[in-house]
Amino acid sequence: MPLNPQILLDNRPTGEAVASNFRLVSSETPALQDGQVLVRHHFLSLDPYMRGRMNDAKSYAAPQPLGEVMQGGTAGEVVESRSPKFQPGDKVVGMGGWQQYSVVNADQPGALRKVDTTHVPLSHYLGAVGMPGVTAWYGLVKIIAPKSGQTVVVSAATGAVGSAFGALAKARGCRAVGIAGGPDKCKYAVDELGFDACIDYKLHKDAASLSKALKEACPDGIDGYFENVGGMVLDAVLPRMNAFGRIALCGMIAGYDGQPLPLSYPALILTNRLKVQGFIVSEHMEVWPEALKELGTLVATGKLRPRESVAQGLESAPEAFLGLLKGRNFGKQLVKLI
Amino acid sequence: MPLNPQILLDNRPTGEAVASNFRLVSSETPALQDGQVLVRHHFLSLDPYMRGRMNDAKSYAAPQPLGEVMQGGTAGEVVESRSPKFQPGDKVVGMGGWQQYSVVNADQPGALRKVDTTHVPLSHYLGAVGMPGVTAWYGLVKIIAPKSGQTVVVSAATGAVGSAFGALAKARGCRAVGIAGGPDKCKYAVDELGFDACIDYKLHKDAASLSKALKEACPDGIDGYFENVGGMVLDAVLPRMNAFGRIALCGMIAGYDGQPLPLSYPALILTNRLKVQGFIVSEHMEVWPEALKELGTLVATGKLRPRESVAQGLESAPEAFLGLLKGRNFGKQLVKLI
Repeated sequence: MPLNPQILLDNRPTGEAVASNFRLVSSETPALQDGQVLVRHHFLSLDPYMRGRMNDAKSYAAPQPLGEVMQGGTAGEVVESRSPKFQPGDKVVGMGGWQQYSVVNADQPGALRKVDTTHVPLSHYLGAVGMPGVTAWYGLVKIIAPKSGQTVVVSAATGAVGSAFGALAKARGCRAVGIAGGPDKCKYAVDELGFDACIDYKLHKDAASLSKALKEACPDGIDGYFENVGGMVLDAVLPRMNAFGRIALCGMIAGYDGQPLPLSYPALILTNRLKVQGFIVSEHMEVWPEALKELGTLVATGKLRPRESVAQGLESAPEAFLGLLKGRNFGKQLVKLI
Repeated sequence: MPLNPQILLDNRPTGEAVASNFRLVSSETPALQDGQVLVRHHFLSLDPYMRGRMNDAKSYAAPQPLGEVMQGGTAGEVVESRSPKFQPGDKVVGMGGWQQYSVVNADQPGALRKVDTTHVPLSHYLGAVGMPGVTAWYGLVKIIAPKSGQTVVVSAATGAVGSAFGALAKARGCRAVGIAGGPDKCKYAVDELGFDACIDYKLHKDAASLSKALKEACPDGIDGYFENVGGMVLDAVLPRMNAFGRIALCGMIAGYDGQPLPLSYPALILTNRLKVQGFIVSEHMEVWPEALKELGTLVATGKLRPRESVAQGLESAPEAFLGLLKGRNFGKQLVKLI
């Protein structure tokens, strides 16, 4: 069996996550049992939620165990199979973790999913046509549920979730406004992703200033907001929400290092009669088929052209991940393993 | 026509509301036109929402106009009628405002409602079987929507909304836990209102301490929370919410004077996948008949025995209202006018 380089969580961050929280090791992949397949990972997905799991805190998911392979989504190819369900050469996505190979029990529901790479590149199954895309779909369709002509806003607009959100919102006839960091991302959001406008939050020192820019970009107010960030951005959005607006709370990356991240004026939820709802897409598996179908069509027809930041080699994963947490990525952050 | 004492909003509060914001005047009631009735108010309702309307701020309702009679709910008796819909002697509730008499256009939908005082005392139509009761009903039934056996919590538990909430929750097989200020109120909540437990927030200096008391009173966590207060109480409740919990945001009286009232850890909405929803009961008139029917039955059968604080005479309204804002009332705050 091949030698398998792996990245483990070595120790938990105190405050900001750092490269020394991780450790690179190598082990032999075990011989396959009946019903198992060996997958060679082509791409590793890096996602903000992983930072939360590095903490040993009460949350929706159990913390990432210390001394074990970092968990995460992977896309790859079956190289050996002792299951009738998979053949060598099959392209598959799963939760293989930060390693070159994984051994998967093919009978475990949802552990491994065959994908068709005819019209959709393999890596996109970790982004627009995968968990981040379905996350955007759920927040938009099931929580915000906008009518055509309404205004929806998303933070981290050029990320994997944000770019899918923009395409899905435009497909529903909404005005889609993004918030992103820096002129390049904002230009890309409008020119390539189809956002009607994009606000560079880095140009704004405080929530009041950002809120003013939102007022200009959303002359009819905001009906739905998809939150990936938290903190100042949420404070800036809240006063712009229309009555009966909906806020899908998906991520609060600004608070992942444990610093306090208060909401300054929660009374606006009352005065504007808002609905604020937190969700985790893995708890809503029932929507995945419908969502993936729409997302796959958007990508295959060129209506969603997600951008990727691709780091090369497993050993680059920690630095790429730390960059993602600081917004250094541009689009979906991947690690290419072969 | 009789002389009509009235209380106007003379000037807006800067910070805390004070008695000199109001002014007592007297005017003659105009002669009735066809279709109008003259109502003599027996009771004036004092409610926390009135404080918000004293500010000249963007909110769900237009501000209370300066120099005009303070708006508010009233219960009284028709003393003269030029409408076939009402007869002298009819007991009615309406929005007559802070004055002894009001002239009402009987054809205006919802302006005046005849009530039956056989089993329900007239004053209760301003409380448990009126707007506050329906407010509790909407938050519990339409937003929190608890299952039997779940734990629900309400702040300002002995107030008009809170006491109705407790009875409605018990009728649905919930564990009902109240939060109130002082040992007398807490004893009353448990002994008379049927709450399973009631926490005296005045015994707790900070959110962490109050949160610990909530943990003891809610051993299975909190599935639904009805918020009347905001601030420290909301901060204390949020960490105790179970996954998929619902928070009905009805009032944030702690912030009515304009001081900042941040929510310390909004990320808990995400990690606990909560739904937080603000609402205003007057925007959901479709539920009133069903809600009033249940509330009337609870009162008529003695299952809801709401307490009242009754101030005597129109001139006592400002001080009684300021006391309500400080929690000095015990149960529904009314002003008796005759």
